[in-house]
Amino acid sequence: MKPIVVDAFGGDHAPKEIILGAFLAAKEFNLDIVLVGKRHEIEKSIEIISKDFSSNLAQRITIKDAPTVITMFDKPSVAVRKRNSSMHVGMELVKHDEASAFISAGNSGAVMAIAMMVLGKLKGVSRPAIGALLPTINGSVLLLDAGANVDCKPIHLLEFSIMGSVFIKHMLGIQKPKIGLISNGSEPGKGNSLVIKSYDLIKSSALNFYGNIEGNEIFSDKVDVAVCDGFVGNIILKTSESVPSIIGEFLKAQISKSLVYKIGYLLSKPAFRMLKKKTDYAEFGGAPLLGVNGACIVSHGRSKAYAIKNAILKAAKFASLDINTKIEEAIEKCSALKYIQRGVENAI
Amino acid sequence: MKPIVVDAFGGDHAPKEIILGAFLAAKEFNLDIVLVGKRHEIEKSIEIISKDFSSNLAQRITIKDAPTVITMFDKPSVAVRKRNSSMHVGMELVKHDEASAFISAGNSGAVMAIAMMVLGKLKGVSRPAIGALLPTINGSVLLLDAGANVDCKPIHLLEFSIMGSVFIKHMLGIQKPKIGLISNGSEPGKGNSLVIKSYDLIKSSALNFYGNIEGNEIFSDKVDVAVCDGFVGNIILKTSESVPSIIGEFLKAQISKSLVYKIGYLLSKPAFRMLKKKTDYAEFGGAPLLGVNGACIVSHGRSKAYAIKNAILKAAKFASLDINTKIEEAIEKCSALKYIQRGVENAI
Repeated sequence: MKPIVVDAFGGDHAPKEIILGAFLAAKEFNLDIVLVGKRHEIEKSIEIISKDFSSNLAQRITIKDAPTVITMFDKPSVAVRKRNSSMHVGMELVKHDEASAFISAGNSGAVMAIAMMVLGKLKGVSRPAIGALLPTINGSVLLLDAGANVDCKPIHLLEFSIMGSVFIKHMLGIQKPKIGLISNGSEPGKGNSLVIKSYDLIKSSALNFYGNIEGNEIFSDKVDVAVCDGFVGNIILKTSESVPSIIGEFLKAQISKSLVYKIGYLLSKPAFRMLKKKTDYAEFGGAPLLGVNGACIVSHGRSKAYAIKNAILKAAKFASLDINTKIEEAIEKCSALKYIQRGVENAI
Repeated sequence: MKPIVVDAFGGDHAPKEIILGAFLAAKEFNLDIVLVGKRHEIEKSIEIISKDFSSNLAQRITIKDAPTVITMFDKPSVAVRKRNSSMHVGMELVKHDEASAFISAGNSGAVMAIAMMVLGKLKGVSRPAIGALLPTINGSVLLLDAGANVDCKPIHLLEFSIMGSVFIKHMLGIQKPKIGLISNGSEPGKGNSLVIKSYDLIKSSALNFYGNIEGNEIFSDKVDVAVCDGFVGNIILKTSESVPSIIGEFLKAQISKSLVYKIGYLLSKPAFRMLKKKTDYAEFGGAPLLGVNGACIVSHGRSKAYAIKNAILKAAKFASLDINTKIEEAIEKCSALKYIQRGVENAI
């Protein structure tokens, strides 16, 4: 397998934790990795990190120089013009088939914009989307679009459904992933005008369409893929991420009020640690960009080495399973989509 | 003060808990209450409940017969045709000035639809909205629209902002409530097309506009009023309500695995109970319908007596402060709104 390109300068803990994550992945999964970014700084970090690993592991890690860093504050429109950035240079390797996949813990809007420019879109896909794999009571759910496309048409929500279905089928081995459309009511006919139109369209496809799901059903294992526009997806993602930490903050304040509470908390702490592990993005290993012509995974900005290792693993799996070709085939096969693409898009 | 009308047949625990809540409110706040619904069943419940209260309290409680019950499954369009329902009959009392406010723990879509038909809209308001007062780390936030209007125009989001501002100012005594616009990014220019246009409009008003807020900022005390369309609001409400119970379910399963965890949990249980109290809708006492010509509060469907008592208190306060006249005055004063109402609505 061709190497995985890792953006050494994306994320809050770059480059050290990113490079450590790359070493862990190279060791654990026997992967070749290209670290892309400022050569000199990468070399310095490698010098320190490599001491903890066997010397032949270092051969699996190479460096590709890229002098410019995209920050979390760079607008996507600005980021795409920085041709020497680690993101741009990294994706060029994927484009020219020198690498099989790209991962970054950097600015997801910038990753998407640069992927659109450098890699382009898959055949038949009009709007690539960001998928976020989130923990549920008994498993996980892919929320998409998690933020790439703020204004959507029904055809886009159908594309998201197809791409999400292919991703979950092959990455998680679920034969007929259940697709849910996020709405303000479960009955057909509920929703804003986008959702009402999308419902009929997705229902007319060959997908395993569950129907509408409400906000309180997203994490309830009713569906494998929860589809919405990127505006709604971004808000769901951020709202649901924030609630546990608000609860935690409040509980901490309450518990600190009494020694008995504190002792009680300490005794049951392992149970809380399991909760933290379950809801930890690091376990889930990053969000795929679905619909761009190359395997791209965006890891959480707060990613440390362990999360990066998992994201690299996911990127390798995405590439080796050739998810993108399978998405193109599924898009090609979808008659509902073909019908619309033939020119009646404005009718729906 | 004229009596408060309580829909005795709305909610999962109707009529018993509703009637008990009415007794508690009558006792604690010296309010007169009209229970509306099936007379015979109300009388039976009163017979049992009134034993626990002094006999002169019963004089504060009267009954208005309404033979038909609106269920949670009735579509608003069906509900409005049931002219003998407890909701319809109850609101007629408000309309004819025989009562000062109406509360129900029933189907909120039906309450809104019937309120629109029976009470009509306030002067200058094109779209009444449902406000949901939610707990934050240090206080509360009014989310609106929480579900009444799935497709909105910028003018509607401006109206929601004005109504929310007036409500929070007078009900909570916050002089200049901060208004946040829910978006997928905090900078101006972020958002879907509705939010981008609404941003400029709300900013041009005299409101204390904070700017955009992201999903993770809704519960962070940055703003007093969080504005969005009713589709997004409904999903935020249901998603954020569901996360704590999912966490609780998972923790329960973990804690049950070990006796030590169980003992630990028991010791720190009062801290958890505080959390439950804090996030309990019952403490917040219901969601106001803002923009209809009469004081209407919708209480949570799961409301028991305590929640109903709080909702009655809130309804009485809403009516006695004459929030609706204050909303009409604020709408009348808003020059940004006048400009649009003069016929350029389609331009934005």
